Order: sequence, then C-alpha cells, then structure tokens
Amino acid sequence: MSKRNIRVVVEYDGSRYLGWQAQADGPSIQTALADALFAITGERPHVEAAGRTDAGVHAIAQVVCFKVDSLIPAERFAPALNAHLPEDITVHGSEEVPLAFSARHDSTGKRYRYRIYNARQPAGLEALRAWHVRQPLDLEAMRTAATHLVGELDFESFRSAQCDAEHARRAMFAITIEATPRPPVGRYVDITFHANAFCRHMCRILAGTLTEVGRKRYTPDDVRTILEARDRTRAGITAPPWGLTLLEVQYPS
Amino acid sequence: MSKRNIRVVVEYDGSRYLGWQAQADGPSIQTALADALFAITGERPHVEAAGRTDAGVHAIAQVVCFKVDSLIPAERFAPALNAHLPEDITVHGSEEVPLAFSARHDSTGKRYRYRIYNARQPAGLEALRAWHVRQPLDLEAMRTAATHLVGELDFESFRSAQCDAEHARRAMFAITIEATPRPPVGRYVDITFHANAFCRHMCRILAGTLTEVGRKRYTPDDVRTILEARDRTRAGITAPPWGLTLLEVQYPS
Repeated sequence: MSKRNIRVVVEYDGSRYLGWQAQADGPSIQTALADALFAITGERPHVEAAGRTDAGVHAIAQVVCFKVDSLIPAERFAPALNAHLPEDITVHGSEEVPLAFSARHDSTGKRYRYRIYNARQPAGLEALRAWHVRQPLDLEAMRTAATHLVGELDFESFRSAQCDAEHARRAMFAITIEATPRPPVGRYVDITFHANAFCRHMCRILAGTLTEVGRKRYTPDDVRTILEARDRTRAGITAPPWGLTLLEVQYPS
Repeated sequence: MSKRNIRVVVEYDGSRYLGWQAQADGPSIQTALADALFAITGERPHVEAAGRTDAGVHAIAQVVCFKVDSLIPAERFAPALNAHLPEDITVHGSEEVPLAFSARHDSTGKRYRYRIYNARQPAGLEALRAWHVRQPLDLEAMRTAATHLVGELDFESFRSAQCDAEHARRAMFAITIEATPRPPVGRYVDITFHANAFCRHMCRILAGTLTEVGRKRYTPDDVRTILEARDRTRAGITAPPWGLTLLEVQYPS
C-alpha cells in the first residue's frame, strides 16, 4: 500500500489537556487526534506536531502531519476528524503533502502570542486565556528590553532546565508588545514572539522576564545582562501556560 | 445596625454554571457570590442581579447589589470577594449606593452581544464562546431584517413560553450586526442588542431568527410577519446560550 502524508491545521483550547504530547496519566492533544484518526481510518500512525505545546497552552493554527493508507480524500479529513474530536480540539483544514514533509523539522518560523490581562482585579472570562497582572506595566521599558532579545542569540538563560535541545541558539525575528483596551476595565498586553524555533518554556520565561521589566523590577539593560549570562537562574519567572497561544507555523513556500 | 447597599460589577464565564439564579441541583453565579459574601462578612443577604442570565450565558459587566451590616469599606468588597470566588467569576469593582437602589428594577437599558463563529469547520477555542454556523450568512439581509425589530414593539413571538413577564412590549434601541475576521479562517458575526429590557430567551430567539435570515431560510419581510403574529411557534430556533454575553447594564446617571 502506498502511504499518503496528510497535513492538518489544528486549533485547541489547552485548558483540559496535559499538553500536546501523549501522557500516561491524562488527556493530551496528540492522543485525542490519534483516537479520532483511528475512528475514521482504523489506523494508528504517529501524529507529529510543529510545536509540542505545554499543558494549558492553546493553539489556533498548530500544524500536524501523519501518514495513512486510507483513501479518504485529503480535504475530507478535516470534517471527519471534527466529527470525532472533543469540541475543544478542531481541525480547520486538511491537505495531502509530499511524503517527505515533516511538520516539525520543516518549519522555518513560528509565532506565539503571550497575553497578559493587566487590571487591578481579575476577569472571569480570561481566567484560562490570559495571565492576570495587577501592577501597571511600563510598555516602553518592556519594548526597549525586547530589542535586546531580537537577533541570532543564545537563549540559554531563557529555557527550561528540562529542555532537550542541543543548544539554545535561535533567531528571534521580532517581538511586538501591544496594548488594547479590554472592556469594561483594564487592557490586554499582548507580547508576540516570532522566531525560527523556540526552546522549551522559552516564550513563557521571556514573557515573565519582560513583565518584570514592566513592573520595574528589572531594567531593560538587566535583560541584556541576563541574556549574556547564559544562566536560567538569572531570568524572571516562567509566566503561566494559559496566557500562551501558538498563532502560526511557517514553512518554505 | 444600619444596612448598607453595595453595588458590584461582575464578570463570569457561564460555562460551568446553571445560570445566574440559585438552583437546588447545581452551581449558580448567585450562590457562588452569596457564598463568597458569607465568607467575608458572615452575612447571607439576598444577592440581586440586573439580568438573570441562563445556563451557559456569560457576562462581562453584570450589575449586582446586596445589603449588608458589614463595615468593610465599599471599595474593598471587590478584592475581598475575588479572593473567595472561583476563578471564572470575578468582581471588577464595588461601591456603596443609596439603600433604595435596585440593580434589577432601576436598570434603564442593557446591551447583549450574540457571537456567531461563521466558518466551514468549528474552532476549539470558541466551543463555549460562540455559536458555530457553517453556512455563509447574508449580513445585509440580516441587517434589513433587524430594522423590523427596532422600536417600541411587542416581542411576544420572541420570548420563551416560560417567560414570567406580564407582557412582551420592550423598547429595542438598536441592533447592530458586525463581521470581523477570526484567524486563521472564518469570521465572527456579532449581533448586539440594546434594549430597555429583555424577555426570557429573547436575545437567543432573535439571534436564531436573524441567523435563519442570513441562511436565506427566512426573508427580512418574514421577520416582520413573525413579529406581528405574536406567536412563539412562528420564530426561528433559540440560538445556544454559549454565544451570548451580557456586555453592559445602564442606569439613570
């Protein structure tokens, strides 16, 4: 039988899951997709994602691929999977790609958004969607700090001790920090990270560190010092997972 | 002891609740607030909301009042309640108001938003926040239909058989229908209703009926005929609760 490689774009609310990766002790996005795929094809291929998101992290356009014998037309995978997936995991679209395509290894860029809800009191509808930060944030200081984090850099200070990548050199293409009013009170502060790839917890440690700058606990120059130290113990806290969303995965066109 | 009347602005994600009103068989927003209030004051006053939202309906600025003997400074109720509430119910602010103030009876207007996610496939992050409608919607037809629903009208055809109001005459000040792109695919179609008051299920039946116009199952003129019939069986379906959010409650200034 000739295998076919199918690429799907997946959105999920990560709140109820232990993350992308299959886990023995609870639900994962990978297992939910594998189960839905089994229901429609009777096959259990490896299901590969571009980014292995942590527990509680969301995605609006995760890219996933898998190889099947099934002759279901490629574009029918999206509605067929949606009919079997839990309602907090959905497929926007599906297509056939060359057998050599790898969602993970062929990716040339990703965009993540870290969302802060900045207000005196928390907001019920944001509890699992944004990090509530009470203190006023100095966005100009955060933007100045972010300039030190753009370029081809060694992000050793900004990755988890459990990160299994060989090194932490990554090309950060851009970091944007935008505030928008969030009725009835407060505002969103959205930090968007665009890089060729990310280390484990990198977005969350960067968001935690930039927030410390916004709260005036670090200066923008401290961030450069932390970067140059190549020492995780120097950076800020790891911001909670529920503020993070994978927005986009890029491939060579 | 001299009672004080405290007014709070409340946001909630209605997904886990049976609605505003206390219920014997499960959690309600009203009971959660009463329990938090008891934890901080030792008192169990009646907790009154401007709008008694249905199970699954959200609010970003519900207005609630209660009378207490407690001498806690009025502005301290917000953080104190937040410390005791579940994370999906929060208080934006609190203030003391005249003893005669009633959140429900003094309200002169409310704004509700009904959110549709309009795309071929559903979106995981919208599962409990928007109604997924697959078919393309004709917004111009919906807007024309909505013009028949603005004014001082009898909304008998658009209220639940269980509505306990004496009559269904309401002043609809405005209905707006706006589409905004929702990455990576599809769009939101937001229907905002601004009226002096609403009957039970009125927003949801209006949203369901306008959506039938958008899907070309009804013409805009059919909506006028349905309104004039004063007969619930003539209107469209009741749109699901999770698309509905109470945005604002208005009072004489």
